[in-house]
Amino acid sequence: MRNIGRLLPMRASPREVLEGAAVHLQNGVVTWVGLDQDIPTGTEYPEFNADGRVVIPGFVDPHTHLVWAGTRRAEFVARLAGETYDGGGITTTVAATRAASDEQLFALAADRGRRMIANGTTTVEIKTGYGLTPEHELRCLDVIARLGTELPWNVEATYLGAHVLPGGRDRSEYVDEVVATIPDAAARGARWVDVFCDEGIFTLDETRRILLAAGDSGLGTRLHAEEIAHTGAADLAAELGCASADHLEHVTAAGARAMAAAGVVGVLLPTVTLSLRTFAFDQYAVLRDAGVPLALATDCNPGTSWCESMPYVVQLACLVYGMPVHEALWAATRGGAAALRRSDVGRIDLGARADLAVLDTEHEADLVARLGGPGNAATVIGGRVWPSPVGRTVVL
Amino acid sequence: MRNIGRLLPMRASPREVLEGAAVHLQNGVVTWVGLDQDIPTGTEYPEFNADGRVVIPGFVDPHTHLVWAGTRRAEFVARLAGETYDGGGITTTVAATRAASDEQLFALAADRGRRMIANGTTTVEIKTGYGLTPEHELRCLDVIARLGTELPWNVEATYLGAHVLPGGRDRSEYVDEVVATIPDAAARGARWVDVFCDEGIFTLDETRRILLAAGDSGLGTRLHAEEIAHTGAADLAAELGCASADHLEHVTAAGARAMAAAGVVGVLLPTVTLSLRTFAFDQYAVLRDAGVPLALATDCNPGTSWCESMPYVVQLACLVYGMPVHEALWAATRGGAAALRRSDVGRIDLGARADLAVLDTEHEADLVARLGGPGNAATVIGGRVWPSPVGRTVVL
Repeated sequence: MRNIGRLLPMRASPREVLEGAAVHLQNGVVTWVGLDQDIPTGTEYPEFNADGRVVIPGFVDPHTHLVWAGTRRAEFVARLAGETYDGGGITTTVAATRAASDEQLFALAADRGRRMIANGTTTVEIKTGYGLTPEHELRCLDVIARLGTELPWNVEATYLGAHVLPGGRDRSEYVDEVVATIPDAAARGARWVDVFCDEGIFTLDETRRILLAAGDSGLGTRLHAEEIAHTGAADLAAELGCASADHLEHVTAAGARAMAAAGVVGVLLPTVTLSLRTFAFDQYAVLRDAGVPLALATDCNPGTSWCESMPYVVQLACLVYGMPVHEALWAATRGGAAALRRSDVGRIDLGARADLAVLDTEHEADLVARLGGPGNAATVIGGRVWPSPVGRTVVL
Repeated sequence: MRNIGRLLPMRASPREVLEGAAVHLQNGVVTWVGLDQDIPTGTEYPEFNADGRVVIPGFVDPHTHLVWAGTRRAEFVARLAGETYDGGGITTTVAATRAASDEQLFALAADRGRRMIANGTTTVEIKTGYGLTPEHELRCLDVIARLGTELPWNVEATYLGAHVLPGGRDRSEYVDEVVATIPDAAARGARWVDVFCDEGIFTLDETRRILLAAGDSGLGTRLHAEEIAHTGAADLAAELGCASADHLEHVTAAGARAMAAAGVVGVLLPTVTLSLRTFAFDQYAVLRDAGVPLALATDCNPGTSWCESMPYVVQLACLVYGMPVHEALWAATRGGAAALRRSDVGRIDLGARADLAVLDTEHEADLVARLGGPGNAATVIGGRVWPSPVGRTVVL
């Protein structure tokens, strides 16, 4: 790819910018990065002219719930009328998801996934959590596996049987069932186990039990933490060595320090805060000041964040948190990779995957300056432009 | 147009919805509105199948500063670092605008305008205010007039010579010059005069003088009011019978009651509040409770709101103000028309202009539920689909 106006490779520093740059991609990996004028003689660059645009690593979205059926419109309308979120709406989606066929679930999620890819996402984490029986949870893992093979992006599958306690189930028996399902989940492609550990959802003890079982099955762990209330879930994530703790609206400075010491990535989900209308935006500064490595994600889900656009998340993060643009872009690429413990994505460097997002602007500051835009002009995954949208403009 | 899933005509009530509707458009106006099944025999509907989507009146955007050159990226980056807005950045844009040719100014504004139309805007108000000499202000009015003739939408031109006091000018002499320019502005197509009446910008007395002169020249009046601080500008708008008072972050309940009594429309600009990071969202409730008719606008400008999407504004308004979706859509159509004292736009009814926005969703609640989307699928202006984007999806 030649004629890159500003290349942000996300190598050693978020602020590194190469003006007038080029990258060479071969066999799905990055084989050369430098200034356009320094391209070695004889090198062929057939694939793409960035036309002066900003190029960054493809977005890494480390927190989504992409597999669902049904809508939660009524819940959104109620929220505008002043009702608060208690996680109860999840059961609405569970009923619709159980009723949908495998083919319907795949088609719905694939539509969302294609829009995400068009918006520049090249690596995505996808959770189960709307099945809530072993049968339906494992079926959702099959859909997630299919999303990884039939769409060109990189998919990380997470088993979230402990999303919410299903109606009519005994707490202790349900946790037993989740624990017992973990080996099957691993066999069906899950790499991670997640728990919604929060006030009124799952307790610290229940969460600890599930995540320790995950470790026994060789799976990595992550947490929904401190979203509804401060519970100490951030400290638990540090204690258990989770790859990430996500949400964190109610994290304390002590919890943040524990995360930083344990290397737990803090995944910020600004669209959820906007959607829930709590205006709780202080967690960014708490986490930053404690030195917690940060990521940004869409949390794409039907109840609190039906969002398929990482550029939108980056823009919102800058505006609501006061996050510098380069820090937000790092969190949306390299930070997401850290949250998924991936070193092959989220950066443009020799040997990294050839996954790029070509932003439809000449300067990355326009991600803040232009409200509701700019979008992603093209997405490159594994060295291929997909779905060959050269010159296509996604108007945010 | 047939097969409209949900038609929101914005006639007597924001909440009127016709499910399974059709409209007939002829000679640029609406000639029939009803249920698809009730279409009179023999009527031809050749132009468009809405494919079950939501159809509303074309958006009426009653507050934009579309004619400018240059960028204000540095100002955005500084704001993330904690600097506050004092209007000073306007002078940066004035220098770039004065330096640009007429052709450059038109081309830049027309690009923005075409994106606005693609996003569903069919009527727009455009202000001068980056010239700030009689010569450059009148030149900008010529550009605005050309935007009205070369693009298919309806344009309302506003003379905003009193946008900010140009550097090095004496206050009193500059206000004299603005007043003296008003008749020329009217001759060059201005229908409105606006003043940025706020702390550190123009005083109440200066504003009164300018707006009284506007009335003498037969022009309507509107105000930038109560954005930076509470000054009493809302009361002044009521006293002078302005068509609208815009911004209003610092309006008081008394000011709002005065506006309501005088029929002054309150124009809300949520993107500006987001961009300025003041999180001052209380004005909606103050204005609503006083019974002020409301409109929404992009305030498209390079410093505080480079936004070309009314669907984005509607979504943001719902989320930050807690505005019901139907109220927000009314404010973005019928409310904008009221702010511009137009009865021919902003509603889908017999005799109204055939201006429609076809939203890319089956339910208007998705304007809140789907963060960063949905976009506008097609725009109809004067009965014509423009630029014939049938089936085109603008991904927000």
